[in-house]
Amino acid sequence: MPQADVIPDLAAHFAAMPPVASMAIRVLDDTGDGVLRLHAPLDRHVNDKGCAFGGSLASLMTLAGWGLSTRMIGVAGIAADVFVADSDVRYLAPLYGDLCAEARFADGTDLAAVVARLRAGRRARVVVDACVRLPDGDTAARGQARFVAVPKG
Amino acid sequence: MPQADVIPDLAAHFAAMPPVASMAIRVLDDTGDGVLRLHAPLDRHVNDKGCAFGGSLASLMTLAGWGLSTRMIGVAGIAADVFVADSDVRYLAPLYGDLCAEARFADGTDLAAVVARLRAGRRARVVVDACVRLPDGDTAARGQARFVAVPKG
Repeated sequence: MPQADVIPDLAAHFAAMPPVASMAIRVLDDTGDGVLRLHAPLDRHVNDKGCAFGGSLASLMTLAGWGLSTRMIGVAGIAADVFVADSDVRYLAPLYGDLCAEARFADGTDLAAVVARLRAGRRARVVVDACVRLPDGDTAARGQARFVAVPKG
Repeated sequence: MPQADVIPDLAAHFAAMPPVASMAIRVLDDTGDGVLRLHAPLDRHVNDKGCAFGGSLASLMTLAGWGLSTRMIGVAGIAADVFVADSDVRYLAPLYGDLCAEARFADGTDLAAVVARLRAGRRARVVVDACVRLPDGDTAARGQARFVAVPKG
């Protein structure tokens, strides 16, 4: 059974980080089904061209991936810090609406192996695919990032 | 000769974008020597682990590249919008200090050809290398991004 004190409250995590708190992120769903969706209002993220700032799209995707990984590890009852190791982003179309990022583990990810490594006190790596949708369901930006989890203590 | 009204004031550009204004960026030097350096204070960008938030490192590098490209085009007397097309970032070491990003055009960049394309009313693409330094001069993060400039009007 997971320990309640290590199941992360993602909204509280985000609020505790000044650069993230200023993004006004809302966790859209946190159901543990392998997808995490985050929302942020356009007015906090608008650039000089009236659309969403590229840095905000990249940050929201990175945070969705970080949150997905942090939640999975917490639900497994493990205390670990999660760091982003690298990321790539493709900006496909300007977004003139609120930002909605979704993240899921890359195909072939073996979460049981990740958890086993962490339980053995070893670092583990996960790969996350993320995207930000346009209002019509098309894609504004997509990317992939790798995260490293380091067991605490 | 460049037209004064299209030489961009980068600090004013940054201040006009809400997500960028919240980053408290200072343009460290803007001497037109092919390098642009931007500074941001750690207290605005600190994460749950007490070091700089990865999204902030990525955003600051993207902005340094965007600013470098925007300045170069403005100094050439051209009015164009600059969009980030894609980027990749490697996070190499945690940064427990203020953020200082520097950006320069990738080796082999032919800026004269870029300017000629824009003057002919065509889109042009530039590649920028960027990094964020650690206090000891080593590298906290590095990345490369591609920008597309689109002539106005």
